[in-house]
Amino acid sequence: MREDRILLAHGSGGRLSHKLIEEEILPLFRNPLLEKMDDAAVFELGGRLAFTTDSYVVTPIFFPGGDIGKLAICGTVNDLAMVGAQPLYLSLSFIIEEGLPMEEFERVLRSSKAAAAEAGVQIVTGDVKVVASGGADKLFVNTAGIGVIPDGVEISGSGARPGDLVLINGTIGDHGIAVLSKREGLDFSIEVESDCAPLNHLVFEMLKASRKVHCLRDPTRGGLATALNEIARRSGVEIRIFEEKIPIREEVLAACEMLGFDPLYVANEGKLVAVVAPEDAELLLEVMRRNPYGREAAIIGEVREGHPGRVVMKTRFGPSRIIEMLWGDLLPRIC
Amino acid sequence: MREDRILLAHGSGGRLSHKLIEEEILPLFRNPLLEKMDDAAVFELGGRLAFTTDSYVVTPIFFPGGDIGKLAICGTVNDLAMVGAQPLYLSLSFIIEEGLPMEEFERVLRSSKAAAAEAGVQIVTGDVKVVASGGADKLFVNTAGIGVIPDGVEISGSGARPGDLVLINGTIGDHGIAVLSKREGLDFSIEVESDCAPLNHLVFEMLKASRKVHCLRDPTRGGLATALNEIARRSGVEIRIFEEKIPIREEVLAACEMLGFDPLYVANEGKLVAVVAPEDAELLLEVMRRNPYGREAAIIGEVREGHPGRVVMKTRFGPSRIIEMLWGDLLPRIC
Repeated sequence: MREDRILLAHGSGGRLSHKLIEEEILPLFRNPLLEKMDDAAVFELGGRLAFTTDSYVVTPIFFPGGDIGKLAICGTVNDLAMVGAQPLYLSLSFIIEEGLPMEEFERVLRSSKAAAAEAGVQIVTGDVKVVASGGADKLFVNTAGIGVIPDGVEISGSGARPGDLVLINGTIGDHGIAVLSKREGLDFSIEVESDCAPLNHLVFEMLKASRKVHCLRDPTRGGLATALNEIARRSGVEIRIFEEKIPIREEVLAACEMLGFDPLYVANEGKLVAVVAPEDAELLLEVMRRNPYGREAAIIGEVREGHPGRVVMKTRFGPSRIIEMLWGDLLPRIC
Repeated sequence: MREDRILLAHGSGGRLSHKLIEEEILPLFRNPLLEKMDDAAVFELGGRLAFTTDSYVVTPIFFPGGDIGKLAICGTVNDLAMVGAQPLYLSLSFIIEEGLPMEEFERVLRSSKAAAAEAGVQIVTGDVKVVASGGADKLFVNTAGIGVIPDGVEISGSGARPGDLVLINGTIGDHGIAVLSKREGLDFSIEVESDCAPLNHLVFEMLKASRKVHCLRDPTRGGLATALNEIARRSGVEIRIFEEKIPIREEVLAACEMLGFDPLYVANEGKLVAVVAPEDAELLLEVMRRNPYGREAAIIGEVREGHPGRVVMKTRFGPSRIIEMLWGDLLPRIC
């Protein structure tokens, strides 16, 4: 017998939990580490390791260009890539609201698997908890991940130096607007897909071409503005960006205008900001543009001594304005 | 200004997220790896590593003997210890329902910190997400963890061999009954605290004394019965336990009788089942009894060829009965 909805007993740790894991999860993610099914996965590994985690609560769980599973895999892969690590092993943990259609859970599993395969990472451990109807909203996902940092790679949010240039690998705001377009009560018609993607291969190519990448950050929650503020603060520098250089889709700009959002604060899930030595900026731009996730890469700004911790944008119409970190919450549950 | 409740903006990734992290979380867990605040923590490590994760949805979040924070730290520490690893680095990720009193969140942080300190692990990375009121039930926690397995240690759920003896480090069912005693609508008066505890030091002492520990498992969800079934299945052996040897508090037995529960299926959070070579069983029992978390340790059974995958219990009154893995869900959201 096969249940067509998630039941409380799927999270009991007992028979139905084992059935779910053995029939739905293991066959998809099968690998020797996961199959041992011990309390922890065991593997040989050494060097400079990176370790990160994120929980995902995006609503709706399916959106144009992805779903919560793909998002959770890409998010953790990208966080590892942002310190220059090659992502290797991920955990995948679910908190499910009782009653979730099994078909929806399976779709999330399949897209998680596809994203993991694209990134070249293995799911080696995980967990399933189920809460009674009303105790959670459909599905929450947590991923944690481990990667290895190649020798000689030193990337940190504190690495930006005056004179460096600021690059981005493409258009901003796509994820936030794509998710928002499917929100209950907000349903609007727009041809924008989430940019949700694993960026580790792009980063790998960048680091192969140049070791003068000082700083990488993925502008997720809080958008480009917040990511740049974090870099400016942690590096003790001023960052100056040029509005006209920032790639953005017309549809996203139009949606932002309609909704009253500043696209600088809208979440991205397949973007990275790179702060690099000026002499390698053009080379890195070329490398980025050759990657499917970097075709619209651009140099959008520069690092100066200026006021440490400050981000300034030269607007399209001339004057500069200070770009603060996100206040309040623009778009709850965007990731 | 200090908010007295968790707001949506605490999960925005923006200013209020930074404030929460910098003012509430960092000061408590402060360590050089966490303080870098990059997208991933970076550290040197090598050898045979263990990696695990669990999400925690226990309700209520505070219960006699612990809370969801202590539970989350101990759970992941214990999962690492169950493969013989020395736990080192943990992640700590929160999904919070908007409106949670800040004081409750701080209590959870403080007990997480105390548990991490006792276990000797560092929190090196984490995440905070907030969902609107009604989208989650107060607070969910995820931890993932990394540990190192000493040379020569080979522990797995598939390691039990005929002739081995089965040990447990104390009384069963305390966690499940303690949590249940505080459930809304079930509130009953009982003097039992959760056994929630980090068991890594106990395991370390056991492995120092003997390398003939073949198998370790913490009988959490699904209880002792389910843990033994997992070992019997994975090792292809029969396990025979003796009811009269299994340590259990009178109060827990009484509560189970009142509620119609079989204590063999009630969750534990500070217990381990060890399957060990018979020649070292008495030595290991002594070692366990010297540890604060093993004072009531006992030899409760033996491994036989018998019917592979079967667990049998010789009851107090003579006849044997087959002990199945948990069916259905006895106690949802017990961990």
